[in-house]
Amino acid sequence: MIIVLKHDAPAQSAERLLERIEAAGLQPLHMPGSERVVLGALGDERVLAELALDSDPDVESVKPILAPYKLVSRELHPHDTVVRIGSVAIGGTALAVIAGPCAVESAEQLRASAEAARDAGATILRAGAYKPRTSPYGFSGHGPEGLAILREVGDALGMPVVTEVMDTADVELIAEHADALQIGARNMQNFALLRAVGKTRKPVVLKRGLSAKIEEWLLAAEYLLSAGNSQVVLCERGIRTFETATRNTLDLNAVPYVKGKTHLPVIVDPSHGTGIRELVTPMALAATAAGADGLMIEVHNDPSAALSDGAQSLYPQQFTALMTALRPVAQVVGKSV
Amino acid sequence: MIIVLKHDAPAQSAERLLERIEAAGLQPLHMPGSERVVLGALGDERVLAELALDSDPDVESVKPILAPYKLVSRELHPHDTVVRIGSVAIGGTALAVIAGPCAVESAEQLRASAEAARDAGATILRAGAYKPRTSPYGFSGHGPEGLAILREVGDALGMPVVTEVMDTADVELIAEHADALQIGARNMQNFALLRAVGKTRKPVVLKRGLSAKIEEWLLAAEYLLSAGNSQVVLCERGIRTFETATRNTLDLNAVPYVKGKTHLPVIVDPSHGTGIRELVTPMALAATAAGADGLMIEVHNDPSAALSDGAQSLYPQQFTALMTALRPVAQVVGKSV
Amino acid sequence: MIIVLKHDAPAQSAERLLERIEAAGLQPLHMPGSERVVLGALGDERVLAELALDSDPDVESVKPILAPYKLVSRELHPHDTVVRIGSVAIGGTALAVIAGPCAVESAEQLRASAEAARDAGATILRAGAYKPRTSPYGFSGHGPEGLAILREVGDALGMPVVTEVMDTADVELIAEHADALQIGARNMQNFALLRAVGKTRKPVVLKRGLSAKIEEWLLAAEYLLSAGNSQVVLCERGIRTFETATRNTLDLNAVPYVKGKTHLPVIVDPSHGTGIRELVTPMALAATAAGADGLMIEVHNDPSAALSDGAQSLYPQQFTALMTALRPVAQVVGKSV
Amino acid sequence: MIIVLKHDAPAQSAERLLERIEAAGLQPLHMPGSERVVLGALGDERVLAELALDSDPDVESVKPILAPYKLVSRELHPHDTVVRIGSVAIGGTALAVIAGPCAVESAEQLRASAEAARDAGATILRAGAYKPRTSPYGFSGHGPEGLAILREVGDALGMPVVTEVMDTADVELIAEHADALQIGARNMQNFALLRAVGKTRKPVVLKRGLSAKIEEWLLAAEYLLSAGNSQVVLCERGIRTFETATRNTLDLNAVPYVKGKTHLPVIVDPSHGTGIRELVTPMALAATAAGADGLMIEVHNDPSAALSDGAQSLYPQQFTALMTALRPVAQVVGKSV
Repeated sequence: MIIVLKHDAPAQSAERLLERIEAAGLQPLHMPGSERVVLGALGDERVLAELALDSDPDVESVKPILAPYKLVSRELHPHDTVVRIGSVAIGGTALAVIAGPCAVESAEQLRASAEAARDAGATILRAGAYKPRTSPYGFSGHGPEGLAILREVGDALGMPVVTEVMDTADVELIAEHADALQIGARNMQNFALLRAVGKTRKPVVLKRGLSAKIEEWLLAAEYLLSAGNSQVVLCERGIRTFETATRNTLDLNAVPYVKGKTHLPVIVDPSHGTGIRELVTPMALAATAAGADGLMIEVHNDPSAALSDGAQSLYPQQFTALMTALRPVAQVVGKSV
Repeated sequence: MIIVLKHDAPAQSAERLLERIEAAGLQPLHMPGSERVVLGALGDERVLAELALDSDPDVESVKPILAPYKLVSRELHPHDTVVRIGSVAIGGTALAVIAGPCAVESAEQLRASAEAARDAGATILRAGAYKPRTSPYGFSGHGPEGLAILREVGDALGMPVVTEVMDTADVELIAEHADALQIGARNMQNFALLRAVGKTRKPVVLKRGLSAKIEEWLLAAEYLLSAGNSQVVLCERGIRTFETATRNTLDLNAVPYVKGKTHLPVIVDPSHGTGIRELVTPMALAATAAGADGLMIEVHNDPSAALSDGAQSLYPQQFTALMTALRPVAQVVGKSV
Repeated sequence: MIIVLKHDAPAQSAERLLERIEAAGLQPLHMPGSERVVLGALGDERVLAELALDSDPDVESVKPILAPYKLVSRELHPHDTVVRIGSVAIGGTALAVIAGPCAVESAEQLRASAEAARDAGATILRAGAYKPRTSPYGFSGHGPEGLAILREVGDALGMPVVTEVMDTADVELIAEHADALQIGARNMQNFALLRAVGKTRKPVVLKRGLSAKIEEWLLAAEYLLSAGNSQVVLCERGIRTFETATRNTLDLNAVPYVKGKTHLPVIVDPSHGTGIRELVTPMALAATAAGADGLMIEVHNDPSAALSDGAQSLYPQQFTALMTALRPVAQVVGKSV
Repeated sequence: MIIVLKHDAPAQSAERLLERIEAAGLQPLHMPGSERVVLGALGDERVLAELALDSDPDVESVKPILAPYKLVSRELHPHDTVVRIGSVAIGGTALAVIAGPCAVESAEQLRASAEAARDAGATILRAGAYKPRTSPYGFSGHGPEGLAILREVGDALGMPVVTEVMDTADVELIAEHADALQIGARNMQNFALLRAVGKTRKPVVLKRGLSAKIEEWLLAAEYLLSAGNSQVVLCERGIRTFETATRNTLDLNAVPYVKGKTHLPVIVDPSHGTGIRELVTPMALAATAAGADGLMIEVHNDPSAALSDGAQSLYPQQFTALMTALRPVAQVVGKSV
């Protein structure tokens, strides 16, 4: 950690801070420059975070050297983690395709959508029983009844299922019904939920928050791992920027960047990442070429009648075409579909 | 609601959509232009949201005419709502000043900080017992023990207290101890929490999310009101932008804009809004001049030893100076302190 | 165009505005709703832009129906435009690869870099003689001398050359030496420059501005076309967002989105789009899979000694590996390299 | 400057880099930590920028200690600079109010608008003869004729005039007619223009770019000062964020922040900063309370007929009311109007 003192900091400040660094068990370093005094603290600087040296009135800035996360870091754990959702591996040599409708609307709708997804090659089923909605007047899911339908359809089609959990109070019930729990973008920093889900041993799909920096996303995953759950899949789903032509800006840079920092698998959701049906297929191909370990795609048997997210849901035939286009791209980057 | 069809939409699309509009109880309107067919739906278009016409493959875009919120809207409720936290009114002619440390660290620290705040003129005490922290390794508050200290110090000094709730499981306990519940920026779209807090009858301070559009913030408030709780104070605390010189970008535009749209009071948190101690005072003055109904400010008896947010916490004497500078500005905009 | 009146607009406002619409030669439409009066204007609404109806104190908002650009629009010109830079086509069935160093540093450096680029398969040479630099103390290029070197090396290797123009005063000189002119991100809305470059008949590579919405980017291209130059290649190079882990956020959503709106070819610059050498190759593959018509990539014979942008420049052997990886991806999306 | 090596950097890298640091005339420092090797370079690190150490394949990151600007810095020049536009001082104890219409539309319109501005207390007249417009079909100003009108009206009313320059080719002509040159937000990083304007001795109003970080804005000013022109006024006019309710997000944090970093005066443009007439007055008061040295406000004699920016232009009586409200706020922060 590097501590830059203010231009006009008195000499005693440096001494006082160096003492605090030493008292915290780190090796202090004094670098008096011509315009600024700079201090260093060598060792595991994470203990220094608690010292909050930036609160000192004579400190201009504090520059950490090491990443603030440990368990998710590739440095400590160089080999790729493979997460298993039911019988499906994410993070290995196969590209995992998770598909299904935004929400469980009815047994018929889910079954028809899931069959279309499965027939085209998807191996994990997604659908929400609890839906986060911007407006209190929107359809917010069928809850426990939706969960039961999801489990039933998944079992009938031989597909493991993933569904979103939004409340610590629901974690147990959803963990009983689903093969994996999804933490949505709006809850990425719902730390109570992260801790509760971290205590289950269910695999987790952790979506990136709308305005989450990559480091914050990895720290959210660190919450899960530090609570004991190492079965975490990261999901890039688009960030909020000034651009309004698309629903979000899909940050594919994050795929190779994050894979360089962490051993956890990274998948991409081009449905939320674009918000526009016509862009889902090209961006699914792009995500695969960028090195994603999997895709999460909204498919609905009749998108124009969908209760939510219809505008970004693929028609069954579009999803089939996507899967066909996907195979050779995956192959080029060394993955099977 | 205005529905713009795609350039190449067939004529039957317009008919089909007009029928759906009529079936939903709205008055349909057909506007065939030279380059686009445009449809209108007159009436309470909020019922149309459920139709999700933008899912239709022949629809290019849907442009709502009315705001998606009702209960928070000034159109239906033109007069300012005054929220009472304990004996203190927010939204009337007095500028409400909420102050205190980021977190309850100890009885001594809280008492010293609160006395400094009260002596300078603050009327409501703030301090967190449950703290949202980006890293799982940060200090996350003393929980129930912190709540008890907060209540005790508030009672001893005659200050009502506001504190953050992060989990639906904690709502009841915190509601018993605090005079108002705070929903933090990271939980602004934690819809389960909004519903749970909406069911209490405690006043709520609803912070704006880091990347929340104003409309989304008002819809989050709509969750609270539609669950039965109308005692809501909106708190602007800075948004996330590309600028990194300050911790957040304090969006003071939002103050007069939001006050034009809603009858709820709006306060400003210049501590989180800037992240820099030296900027808190000028931005507190600016927020007041912009028309804010109150301020929420971090004050600590010894910021350089604070366990969190020390860099943006004022020293007691700085807070006293701020209050002195604030009075004439408040007076100019017709408010007393 | 749809004009929404304010809640409390008097009835005469609607009449007054409808008269203005009619006087402008459009068909006026009156839609009195229960909560708002909405007006429509059917016809070529672009003439209405000049009326600036949003200035009227009784108007709440104006919602355009049609895109504000015409010449660049695919609606008027459905077939793909193929731009030729020297003998190389951009926008057809071949993926165009433009490569070279950030800046012309010396004849030796440019020649070595260009040979490496050409040998690996690049067909157009890029290098700056005039460099935009954030600081006045940075290396800003060798100017006319750099131009001469660029022309010489391009001719020697049989590669057409593209280089940036930053000042209307330099347009003529650069147009004499280069096969295509580049307008950089910081000058995307330098309207004087757009007009001057539009008057030349040289092909133009128009980079997207750091904070340019897609519509603004297309309007910048409209400046070029409306000045008479239809040889325009759009280049996505990353936008500025809150994410600082990468230099910019490469917005690949923009590739299929823009190609749906315009007939102009779209290329991608993953060097600026990421700012990190290790991310250039995966993002070049991703851009190709997303449907880009070409790539612009920084290659330097010795990046660690580069005077600018070294951290994002590929080593020759990395560029060769990229080209090898690129061919099968291009083939999958129907393009040759 | 602090140089962090990659996790797996070989020992020789440190030696090689330390030699380069020493060769550049700085004092090298070696800090081998347990997880990373960190190097330091003490002295005027700005010479290191040219070494571009971040290009080295073994370097993970480079962290500068000192600001990259010098001439604009308050450290080297602690006292406030007062800029004089005609007879009006900006940066002293008086709040400077620059007002006028967006564009010179006609002699009558400018005269009527300017008289209203002057009568209410504005001391400098603004109006554009060359207008940057997003669309090539928008009104782009009357050019030289507009300049002549501006000069004439300014002289007649005894108001110095400021107007925008967009092209290096126009600098001389505009400098002849105007008392100060404005560089607009879209041209803040038009480095050719900065250099050309820096060579004149006219005062400059330098607007912040839509997506310019504060450091970049100060470096743009550094271009002007390093070219010899020290008469620079910085103007905050709103930045581009995800929020679309207002035209821009006025970043008032920037006012006290920038005034801490530089000796140059800082003014605020709440017209562009909000884009909404009703928000101009509260945000003008807020800017003043935040410590701005002046305001730039659009006033038009008939905004509903304005050829540009009418929606954000004040009616004369609104501007008069603003000036009345402004005086006591200015007085509170120690400024006269």
